[in-house]
Amino acid sequence: MTDHEPTVLELGLPDPVRADGLPARVRIHEVGPRDGLQNESTALPVDVKAEFIARLAAAGLRTVEATSFVHPKWVPQLADAEELFPRVSGLPAEYPGLRLPVLVPNERGLDRALTLGAKDIAVFASATETFAQRNLNRSVAQSLEMFAPVVERATAAGVAVRGYLSMCFGDPWEGPVAPDQVVAVGRELLAFGCTELSLGDTIGTGTPGQVEALLAAFSAAGVGPERLAVHFHDTYGQALANTLTALRCGVSVVDSSAGGLGGCPYAKSATGNLATEDLVWMLNGLGIETGVDLAALASTSAWLAGHMGRPSPSRAVRALTGA
Amino acid sequence: MTDHEPTVLELGLPDPVRADGLPARVRIHEVGPRDGLQNESTALPVDVKAEFIARLAAAGLRTVEATSFVHPKWVPQLADAEELFPRVSGLPAEYPGLRLPVLVPNERGLDRALTLGAKDIAVFASATETFAQRNLNRSVAQSLEMFAPVVERATAAGVAVRGYLSMCFGDPWEGPVAPDQVVAVGRELLAFGCTELSLGDTIGTGTPGQVEALLAAFSAAGVGPERLAVHFHDTYGQALANTLTALRCGVSVVDSSAGGLGGCPYAKSATGNLATEDLVWMLNGLGIETGVDLAALASTSAWLAGHMGRPSPSRAVRALTGA
Repeated sequence: MTDHEPTVLELGLPDPVRADGLPARVRIHEVGPRDGLQNESTALPVDVKAEFIARLAAAGLRTVEATSFVHPKWVPQLADAEELFPRVSGLPAEYPGLRLPVLVPNERGLDRALTLGAKDIAVFASATETFAQRNLNRSVAQSLEMFAPVVERATAAGVAVRGYLSMCFGDPWEGPVAPDQVVAVGRELLAFGCTELSLGDTIGTGTPGQVEALLAAFSAAGVGPERLAVHFHDTYGQALANTLTALRCGVSVVDSSAGGLGGCPYAKSATGNLATEDLVWMLNGLGIETGVDLAALASTSAWLAGHMGRPSPSRAVRALTGA
Repeated sequence: MTDHEPTVLELGLPDPVRADGLPARVRIHEVGPRDGLQNESTALPVDVKAEFIARLAAAGLRTVEATSFVHPKWVPQLADAEELFPRVSGLPAEYPGLRLPVLVPNERGLDRALTLGAKDIAVFASATETFAQRNLNRSVAQSLEMFAPVVERATAAGVAVRGYLSMCFGDPWEGPVAPDQVVAVGRELLAFGCTELSLGDTIGTGTPGQVEALLAAFSAAGVGPERLAVHFHDTYGQALANTLTALRCGVSVVDSSAGGLGGCPYAKSATGNLATEDLVWMLNGLGIETGVDLAALASTSAWLAGHMGRPSPSRAVRALTGA
């Protein structure tokens, strides 16, 4: 999958919609190296992380969120961002169209990312006040104030900014989250200049009706599915059904994590992301183009599972590799 | 959930369809004690099986496939059918509307089931020749010949017969299975007098487009979704997305297995059934009535997982119980 003409995805043209209402192709935003590893208890050596990212690119993934420039005190698993990023930042020369976004929490993080030559960044906001306070130590409004100059400076530097919005469906303290509340925060992130908004079901409680309702609320507010991505966690086994629902609503960018990284299947709470392999299996079956070589990807996840010291929580990885 | 007026489900009235195209209620055909346990390497004591079935009924499930009257040589896990069935056959007196179907492979099995007072049976056919030969040791046509007198005699005795059809989407030897081939065998089972046809994705490879295509093929052949059930295995993580697709096509009977029994999550191939808890989580979120008490069900699966000596493969069970 590495030696090919630029695809429509790489050229950035809009995604066509098929007669059955599904997108003809889906851009997978692979979050395994960042969202996946940051939620795993095992900290991997930087060499393994760099090889993981290179193998994901070789398997055909064209958006691989590489790491996070958050303070190491908060996410020790990604404390090696300064060492890791230079090891992978040359990959786009080898794989045309490859993007390697990094998460930045604030202007200090942006400085670090820009210094290392990051071309894409992401910021991480909360749709609920409780999670904003607990995760960002400030109110939703204060966190948006913190992000505004980050987005502005990044955009001025020619760096695209993705906005993550967490707790879009349920919140462990507040319960179900009203779509209008999510839309209000999401619109602010887009107004700052975020080019894409990723709607996160951080605790995995959402179901397909909520997905439809939230996407309808965004649409009613003038934000169409072409500006949205979905980001599901498989805590209650709902991630793929929710993703299918979002595709039917016109979304064509889906976040997932190779091998379902992000939650140990043996631990109390298996809060892993949607596994990229389970997603690709469905998309392949539906004839939706992703550019991903599923066998190479599953083999990568099985290899990484060896480094994690446990089987992959992805059902497709286990079925395909016997891992 | 055990002390209530008869519901529409119990009265056997047709299921209404909601404005969003989804059924207002779903009848869950719980297959854990039969399809689940027959595919587990651990053989449970008969006392544990009887308690499992009683707890499933207490959790609100109203169709619980109890066991199989197949020859013990082929399915040693269910060799205790003669001992188990009398221990649970009184449950419907306690839980009005409860059905306890049993699988019978042939007339000998039917004799055993009738002797013990079974009110519902199921027969098990294959959509593909290869699996018919390997699983039933005869051709598809020969297996249908074997089932015809079973269905006829059962029906004459006032016993309802469900027809299982396996390998409806993919076959490990034949690859993808043509919808017309499935429809042809399925129509014969219905013509014999089966009251319901359960379409099985025995190896779990199916994806939502195949589900739509198969249900459309049945509809074109005059078999509407009200006579069909779906039976998905989660081998590649597709079961819930496929189920959602079937619901949108008008199906309202769904097979699932408490705790995702039927495939060890640690074994080479995790071929478990769709977990009933993952299904109920989605249906609850969609406001679709099932009559199931999810907490009681998840607690039952966690209890059984203790007897199996391993955690439940159901994501919802792990999230809800910490098992």
